Amino acid sequence: MQIDTLLLAKWVIPIEPDHAVWPDTAVAIHEGRILDVLPAVQAQQQYQAGNTIDLTNHVVLPGLINAHTHASMNLLRGFADDLPLMTWLQEYIWPAEQQWISHDFVYDGTLLACAEMLRGGTTCFADMYFFAESTARAAEHAGIRATIGLITVDFPSAYAQDAQEYLRKGLALHDQFRGHPLINTMFAPHAPYSVSDAPLSHIATLAEELDIPIHIHLHETEHEIAESLQKFGVRPMQRLEQLGLLTPRLVSAHMTHLTDEEIANYAQVGAHVVHCPESNLKLASGFCPLQKLLDADVNVALGTDGAASNNDLDMFGEMRTAALLAKGVANDAVAGKAETILRMATINGARALGLDGQIGTIEKGKAADLIAVDLSQLETMPNYDPVSTLVYAANRQQVTDVWIAGRHLMKNRELTTLDIRELEKTAQTWQTRLRP
Amino acid sequence: MQIDTLLLAKWVIPIEPDHAVWPDTAVAIHEGRILDVLPAVQAQQQYQAGNTIDLTNHVVLPGLINAHTHASMNLLRGFADDLPLMTWLQEYIWPAEQQWISHDFVYDGTLLACAEMLRGGTTCFADMYFFAESTARAAEHAGIRATIGLITVDFPSAYAQDAQEYLRKGLALHDQFRGHPLINTMFAPHAPYSVSDAPLSHIATLAEELDIPIHIHLHETEHEIAESLQKFGVRPMQRLEQLGLLTPRLVSAHMTHLTDEEIANYAQVGAHVVHCPESNLKLASGFCPLQKLLDADVNVALGTDGAASNNDLDMFGEMRTAALLAKGVANDAVAGKAETILRMATINGARALGLDGQIGTIEKGKAADLIAVDLSQLETMPNYDPVSTLVYAANRQQVTDVWIAGRHLMKNRELTTLDIRELEKTAQTWQTRLRP
Repeated sequence: MQIDTLLLAKWVIPIEPDHAVWPDTAVAIHEGRILDVLPAVQAQQQYQAGNTIDLTNHVVLPGLINAHTHASMNLLRGFADDLPLMTWLQEYIWPAEQQWISHDFVYDGTLLACAEMLRGGTTCFADMYFFAESTARAAEHAGIRATIGLITVDFPSAYAQDAQEYLRKGLALHDQFRGHPLINTMFAPHAPYSVSDAPLSHIATLAEELDIPIHIHLHETEHEIAESLQKFGVRPMQRLEQLGLLTPRLVSAHMTHLTDEEIANYAQVGAHVVHCPESNLKLASGFCPLQKLLDADVNVALGTDGAASNNDLDMFGEMRTAALLAKGVANDAVAGKAETILRMATINGARALGLDGQIGTIEKGKAADLIAVDLSQLETMPNYDPVSTLVYAANRQQVTDVWIAGRHLMKNRELTTLDIRELEKTAQTWQTRLRP
Repeated sequence: MQIDTLLLAKWVIPIEPDHAVWPDTAVAIHEGRILDVLPAVQAQQQYQAGNTIDLTNHVVLPGLINAHTHASMNLLRGFADDLPLMTWLQEYIWPAEQQWISHDFVYDGTLLACAEMLRGGTTCFADMYFFAESTARAAEHAGIRATIGLITVDFPSAYAQDAQEYLRKGLALHDQFRGHPLINTMFAPHAPYSVSDAPLSHIATLAEELDIPIHIHLHETEHEIAESLQKFGVRPMQRLEQLGLLTPRLVSAHMTHLTDEEIANYAQVGAHVVHCPESNLKLASGFCPLQKLLDADVNVALGTDGAASNNDLDMFGEMRTAALLAKGVANDAVAGKAETILRMATINGARALGLDGQIGTIEKGKAADLIAVDLSQLETMPNYDPVSTLVYAANRQQVTDVWIAGRHLMKNRELTTLDIRELEKTAQTWQTRLRP
């Protein structure tokens, strides 16, 4: 049979079935989808490929899913570090946003972020930011898969004046991209402390109607919880429950302060968590009880948060930090196992975004969102276990090739849709503008 | 004046004076030492260099100092992960060591580690392992600076039968390398739980006589402390104090369980700590109270520990983890500031090893142990603050050039003393041998 592309990999890690690491395995790609996964020898007899790619030293796995970021904040990478949270927000981040956010800021920043993500093996990201249409346009230009947050907050910005206007713009964006092969949308009420009851309730209803997820920052800091208790008499998660948001559509980022009861309740509901270990550390938000969530069978995805609080969109680094930190927090060296962390960065992310029918594993019929990682560098030798090597030792610069829906977006470290020299100039221009 | 080498850097971070980031600055190198640090324009008028190196996009800083590792354990990278500490040690690491450690194992493993460290901008490491002569020989072959631990434990190994024999071999090694330009030695009693009183006391005396540091694992786990209380009636640090080891020569790795009183005492004594954040997390040893130690003016260096519990010797990654984790542990986003962390990885390491007169800063007269890091990659743009960019965003693969005592050991990512292809074969051979 004639097919588009045949990848011949030293190992394939399909994620499903669990624990599988298949040596000398081929992935057959046709019309953007995974047509077959089979032994390499057999594949070469069975398929004539327009394009056969030898990945002799590589592991092929599903593209990583960054389930919580603010892509355009790449322009604010390292803009202000090592500051108390409120100083950071009030004296640096918010004034810079107030002054600069615009369609251009978001488009340019997102393109930079897309280049960084593709170069690091991320093939899908979930975003939340102002001027979300520009985020979507930039992602579309890059060819990356994205779930764009229809951001809603109470306070005015250059993007919208009040919650109603944010929502109106969000719904227009949803309509605009309906049926798009790579761009999906989700509601994105910013956080319980920044969105009032009426828009939150409205979003709960709309999400059912449109059948899309709801993404929110939840239980990020102790302060958020104390304030909610004072203002509403309940903790933020309880308030969301009262407003009808605690459903399997809910995708909560951070979740650093949780009672055992809250974990049990959240698990029973079937809502999702996005763990952001590096941002939680950098802003001293608190420790997410990752292993407790996993033990309760909560679906936990992984996210980098924005580059202003990380300071990168490196999902390999994030996996490593998640695996290491889980052990420290649980006081148990068995917590946060490498293979669990890799699932968080792939299928769990897909599940949180409602895309697990399409991406997150290497299975026949799914979209060909794939990455190849060269493990032959000295820094990943010896290699007793490719999963462990990927999570604990591999560097994102070892990602050599990236495909999204079968399209070859990075070939041997060269991006095919984005001009790196142009992006560097863009970054330089914004740097001079923001901090002359 | 005619000199050997002139580096023209976009920025120089000299570490001393504190906070300094000098743009368009040159470092003049002659006969292995830093002859001058001055504005680039002026340098080009003043010096004729045999070799002028344009580092247009680079920051030049002192080489990083990995103050606690077991280099040859690179052969056990990822050998056994995600296991409880005692299972990991008793069922995997110790049996493998029992079966395999030898001069060859240590020499080959150390060479691999040296290649990894040089490629990642580490120019000096402090080691502790069996067959220490082979560690020294491998470091000498690589041209890297090293302080070799004269390991002492009570239990027998292929290297020695008892504490006396370990010490005898250590002293012979010390004599052998006395006066070596790059190889120094220090006593290395493994840990309070593995070395009894008599050899510990003896080492305290010998260290004074020979004027070298004492390196030890200290307060690594709660178990260690409980056991010490049970066996000796005192906590491990108290026991070291009673045995005369708590002096400015002492360099303690880990230090995860400390009372405020112990911190104050340790600070007053002027002993040193090597913080190993990734190993402490991976083995769930506990959280080192880094900011408390820094606030008490304890000199804290940084180390990766061995590749079996990390799983890399990446000092850039370790700096990042140290900076992030400090904030989480102190519950304060201002803890573990980037510039403090960079000092830990340079001058503080030099101070711990008694080498601060020779290395750790870019100052006239010091050895030319320098690295250049290319910050023009998309992943480190924008770059509002080179120190922050180095610690929070830079990847060790952005290190392009390395000099040790003026010798150019990595030129534009190519090692000059080590054959990467040969090392890859070596790693492969050991992998097959250890896990057929």
